[in-house]
Amino acid sequence: MENNQIKNTKTATVIGAGLVGSLWAIYLKNAGYQVNVFERRSDMRLNKISAGKSINLATSYRGWKALDELGIGDEIRKIAIPMYGRTLHHQNGDTAYQPYGNNNQAIYSVSRGDINSKLMSIAEENSNVKIYFNQECVAVNLDLGKAVFKDTTTGVSKEVVADVVFATDGAFSAARYNGFQKLDRFNYSQNYIPDGYREILLPANEDGSFKLSVETLHIWPRGRFMLIALPNFDGSFTCTLFMPFDGHEHCFNNLTSKEKVNTFFKELFPDFYELMPNVADSWEDHPLSSLAIIRCFPWTRGKVALMGDAAHATVPFFGQGMNCGFEDCSVMWSLMQKHAENWDAIFKEYETLRKPNGDAVQDLSLQNYIVMRDKVADPDFLLLQKIERRINFLYPDAYFPLYSMVSFTDISYHTALTKGNEQENKIKQLISENAITKDTPDAKIDEIIHQYIQKSSSLN
Amino acid sequence: MENNQIKNTKTATVIGAGLVGSLWAIYLKNAGYQVNVFERRSDMRLNKISAGKSINLATSYRGWKALDELGIGDEIRKIAIPMYGRTLHHQNGDTAYQPYGNNNQAIYSVSRGDINSKLMSIAEENSNVKIYFNQECVAVNLDLGKAVFKDTTTGVSKEVVADVVFATDGAFSAARYNGFQKLDRFNYSQNYIPDGYREILLPANEDGSFKLSVETLHIWPRGRFMLIALPNFDGSFTCTLFMPFDGHEHCFNNLTSKEKVNTFFKELFPDFYELMPNVADSWEDHPLSSLAIIRCFPWTRGKVALMGDAAHATVPFFGQGMNCGFEDCSVMWSLMQKHAENWDAIFKEYETLRKPNGDAVQDLSLQNYIVMRDKVADPDFLLLQKIERRINFLYPDAYFPLYSMVSFTDISYHTALTKGNEQENKIKQLISENAITKDTPDAKIDEIIHQYIQKSSSLN
Repeated sequence: MENNQIKNTKTATVIGAGLVGSLWAIYLKNAGYQVNVFERRSDMRLNKISAGKSINLATSYRGWKALDELGIGDEIRKIAIPMYGRTLHHQNGDTAYQPYGNNNQAIYSVSRGDINSKLMSIAEENSNVKIYFNQECVAVNLDLGKAVFKDTTTGVSKEVVADVVFATDGAFSAARYNGFQKLDRFNYSQNYIPDGYREILLPANEDGSFKLSVETLHIWPRGRFMLIALPNFDGSFTCTLFMPFDGHEHCFNNLTSKEKVNTFFKELFPDFYELMPNVADSWEDHPLSSLAIIRCFPWTRGKVALMGDAAHATVPFFGQGMNCGFEDCSVMWSLMQKHAENWDAIFKEYETLRKPNGDAVQDLSLQNYIVMRDKVADPDFLLLQKIERRINFLYPDAYFPLYSMVSFTDISYHTALTKGNEQENKIKQLISENAITKDTPDAKIDEIIHQYIQKSSSLN
Repeated sequence: MENNQIKNTKTATVIGAGLVGSLWAIYLKNAGYQVNVFERRSDMRLNKISAGKSINLATSYRGWKALDELGIGDEIRKIAIPMYGRTLHHQNGDTAYQPYGNNNQAIYSVSRGDINSKLMSIAEENSNVKIYFNQECVAVNLDLGKAVFKDTTTGVSKEVVADVVFATDGAFSAARYNGFQKLDRFNYSQNYIPDGYREILLPANEDGSFKLSVETLHIWPRGRFMLIALPNFDGSFTCTLFMPFDGHEHCFNNLTSKEKVNTFFKELFPDFYELMPNVADSWEDHPLSSLAIIRCFPWTRGKVALMGDAAHATVPFFGQGMNCGFEDCSVMWSLMQKHAENWDAIFKEYETLRKPNGDAVQDLSLQNYIVMRDKVADPDFLLLQKIERRINFLYPDAYFPLYSMVSFTDISYHTALTKGNEQENKIKQLISENAITKDTPDAKIDEIIHQYIQKSSSLN
């Protein structure tokens, strides 16, 4: 902050050194800003602390695009495990594999702590970014670009003024709470879904090898709830049980004893139980947590902008939370160039462009919970998926499946949502009009697809 | 609060001495509670201060039901002016009258300050209710029924513990903010509509007489915006202009000078302008205010319940804000009797019963803005209304118009909304199938109605 006093130095405050804050500090540094980042927690690189509620993330196209734009993608790829598809585990022990895309497309499992630590270290690589830890944001003046931080170790508060301020402090953003939420006409909603989640660590074998196949995302779909598992570098899997809190036969509030947890896994996830017969002992290792969609608007006012979860926190079912936040950075960066750092113009266009996409990624995330926990095991959905992939294979320019648009392109979330749902209706119609079943020969399906595409130049 | 120490005295804290808080204190007093009411503002009976943002209210059936249940309806009737219908003022100066119901049904214009003052005085009529003013609620412990109030004149805080606590402190409830909004899994949304409002006082004639016809609610519907006027006891009318803030030809942000205000009224409300040619001088007398729908859930936790606007603040277009809050009191009171003051059971059933009605009154209010500002002047809507009233007249048991269900019965808001929209669709169908127009003779319309009712035993 000493540098605030040097004339002609552009200054920026970033509130929160999470994934989006750390990445955005790198962009700002590259643009010649003196950046001060204030993080409420202590330095996760020094202390083994959790970097938030979930341990794993899936990085997909939009995330890589931002990382590669900064030239740091390859460094992150070193700590990422590709997942080329979903492996479904049925209750009877059968498994099935569904590729995510054609051409070996993959999403990448990364540890939240590892990627966050790396981004902070890259940000700090020269003196233009300084991260201050244990700094709680207690007040924000939007018009003045002023924020007040209380050092939680000393209790001392300080005021920081900068040319521009970015709130990247997550779903329950203190900057949003202390600044935006006090504005007249600020729209805000937090809606919890009826389901919660609990993480369970499935350790590696004694020799360090994986207990489940790696390079895939494991799902145990059970209709109203599901278990998933993502691989970690050390051979372990981070498993997460998503389930209603209450009101259902199977719900968290019914699992009130070790015996009940045991019986639940033994009966509903028998193959998982075999790998982890002591699951009930690990049940309390991670807390039961809730899941919310948080919407708000405006996202900018005066000298302050909300980015990432602070603007559009979502439920995690499309694996797009971090990717969407990173895309916020890409978009803000492109607007900085377009508007020659006229922040009024940048902020106006940023919120106009991104708000519909924030809403769409939330809708997509809610929609994909039903896909993951239920539809993936539904024969009608499997047939639809098969035809989708086949059309995409035969006419890659005419057709993108929804999952691919979201995970393997930077087509806007809003367009992806709209087109994806239109396409699904068209394929359902194709299936019913041509009486396609799972027994229809592949050659016959191809013929139907060729005819269809000839009639309608594209499904898009 | 001295009485808190007396054994076996049931104690209640009411946060907010507005309309709902004051009324609810009377119910609690009658049920034998020692009631302490804490109000953030000073005593409006001593100081001439505004009791909130709007000056007039319309009391309808649900409001009277609660007041009469307490035996105080007649006292309030003394300060209420009946409005039997709407008087529409078209731009060309024509006026038209639409009755609200059959049988001389009316809604009643009351001054917010007058009714609030009266309710406070009735509440205080014996020593069991004590109202403390200048008391800001700064903390709430929901499970302990403890609230902390800071005296805004002395700065001194005190803790108050009671058997049961009611937050009736309005749309931006401090009790909700300090208590409920910190709960995990508390759903909350505040959505501002794009429109704001500004009040204008149209004074009485010099002899104290009214400048417009009394016993009616005046509307100047202009499609995207409107002016309304409600009569006051002193011969004046409280007029309110509802209009978008921006983005339209006619919007508040365009009225930036006295000249523009003048031209706007002269052109768009010529008959009003003639009555008040100095309208531009009064333009700044009242602030430009915003309008929001606030939804949340749960409404109860531990020993604390949200009532009235604190639970379900709405936009004012159906005139149901106070009526719905008073109905919360009626319902809570009936549940106190049903559950013999088992507050856990009362609270559970209260929020389960009332939440759908809180949502419905908000939907109805939004819907009625379009009716008031636009549909009332639409010939299709007038035809629909005419047929509605005729069916209701011919078959009063088979058919209630939506407006009547909401304003003249205690049919639940949720049922009214659902039935009302179903009915409207049926009447539209009746009109189109029978090619009814404004020129169809009344006898022919009656014949169509008789036939229709005979086919379908009821339209409900």
